[in-house]
Amino acid sequence: MTKKRPLLLLSNDDGINAKGIHELIRALRPVGDLIVVAPDGPRSGASGAITSASPIQYALLQQEAGLALYKCSGTPVDCVKLALHAIVPAVPDLVIGGINHGDNSSVNVHYSGTMGVVIEGCLKGIPSIGFSLCNHSADADFSATLPYVRRIVEETLAKGLPEGICLNVNFPDTSDLEGVLICRQTHGVWTNEFVKADHPRGGNYFWLTGEYKNLEPDAEDTDHWALAHNYVAITPTQIDVTAYAMVRELKTWNFDV
Amino acid sequence: MTKKRPLLLLSNDDGINAKGIHELIRALRPVGDLIVVAPDGPRSGASGAITSASPIQYALLQQEAGLALYKCSGTPVDCVKLALHAIVPAVPDLVIGGINHGDNSSVNVHYSGTMGVVIEGCLKGIPSIGFSLCNHSADADFSATLPYVRRIVEETLAKGLPEGICLNVNFPDTSDLEGVLICRQTHGVWTNEFVKADHPRGGNYFWLTGEYKNLEPDAEDTDHWALAHNYVAITPTQIDVTAYAMVRELKTWNFDV
Repeated sequence: MTKKRPLLLLSNDDGINAKGIHELIRALRPVGDLIVVAPDGPRSGASGAITSASPIQYALLQQEAGLALYKCSGTPVDCVKLALHAIVPAVPDLVIGGINHGDNSSVNVHYSGTMGVVIEGCLKGIPSIGFSLCNHSADADFSATLPYVRRIVEETLAKGLPEGICLNVNFPDTSDLEGVLICRQTHGVWTNEFVKADHPRGGNYFWLTGEYKNLEPDAEDTDHWALAHNYVAITPTQIDVTAYAMVRELKTWNFDV
Repeated sequence: MTKKRPLLLLSNDDGINAKGIHELIRALRPVGDLIVVAPDGPRSGASGAITSASPIQYALLQQEAGLALYKCSGTPVDCVKLALHAIVPAVPDLVIGGINHGDNSSVNVHYSGTMGVVIEGCLKGIPSIGFSLCNHSADADFSATLPYVRRIVEETLAKGLPEGICLNVNFPDTSDLEGVLICRQTHGVWTNEFVKADHPRGGNYFWLTGEYKNLEPDAEDTDHWALAHNYVAITPTQIDVTAYAMVRELKTWNFDV
């Protein structure tokens, strides 16, 4: 009796033509059947955005045994929603985002379209993992990450994840990985976020850029510390964002009108 | 000696022309000096999205004593970032999103551009509050919410919020509010999320829609329960999304390659 191959739904925010998602496909072809539904162009920084003011479409690009590739006109989250609604033949065993061209550790989790994919999978009750490499280049070298991507996916398939918890995996940009550390989200802040330029017809426009400041660079349990020391950072991430510690305090406040 | 008036930065995701933000302005004129930097059109469902592939702009629309209104070409989060970078004369005492036309309780927090505003304020270390009304209509009646909006803002100015914690406030669509309940995020899921239509030149397109299913309708400590029973739901929300309970478990997994 052969065991059924896992079904993996893949998406990203860099778009269907990005190197990172094709490297992800390459890493995971041996692990399961892959359905890839990714944006038809870059959607970096899309976070959990959804498209409601206009309709979206998808189209099959490539199909062979164990692999189907689709492009979708929507956001990363739209891709997951539409794939689950209209494309997959069964509920996937995993939803996987990435491999992102760029760091999604620390506060970047809030802006990340890759983690948008992952959080959406998690909201649908499916174990979900995001992979990101700390290199924004279009031709970044993902080769050192691939054995870890495969191992993390295999281990997650074997062990499962509790409902409401997904994984945010970040790789330092090195060929010399030290192994895996389980981390928490680093406390940090973006500063100097815009470059101002003059519009040729008057006025200014602003490019988003910025410098990330780690507010706890010595904390060895954080994802940024792991990355700075050449470790793969796995940060378990939850979709319940309630600040439970604040509930009791707020009950003492006066909200009478 | 007169006390300095608080400086409040307001934004939203329905855009500068939405009724909700003008109702918010009306509620808060007596409370402090207002700087409003809102998208130049609707950005509903923008979540924490940021614009990095193109530059953004802003323009002053209206200025009078205690109130300045700007439109911005970016996302809700862009509005907050650009306001803090280029517009405000000092760090605001509060960042406030809303009043949203539509429910941002439960899992909607992950898609909400209103909460994108609030989370961005919180990431910048500023106490931040999102207000939403469970009515999507452009001409929704916000009048019952306004005394609560003012009271919640005043109480938050007086008490402060711990770093990394913001407030997600949702109002039921009723003129007969029962008071405030402090809540946790309801466990729920969106189903049947698309309506399929035929394209006149062939193929299909899909409109995002859906039905929300509350997976714990009897849980009296949840935001959806509060809203269903005509209470104002205040859900304290945190920007650290680490699933701390999972860290120890993951350390027992095998990630050797």
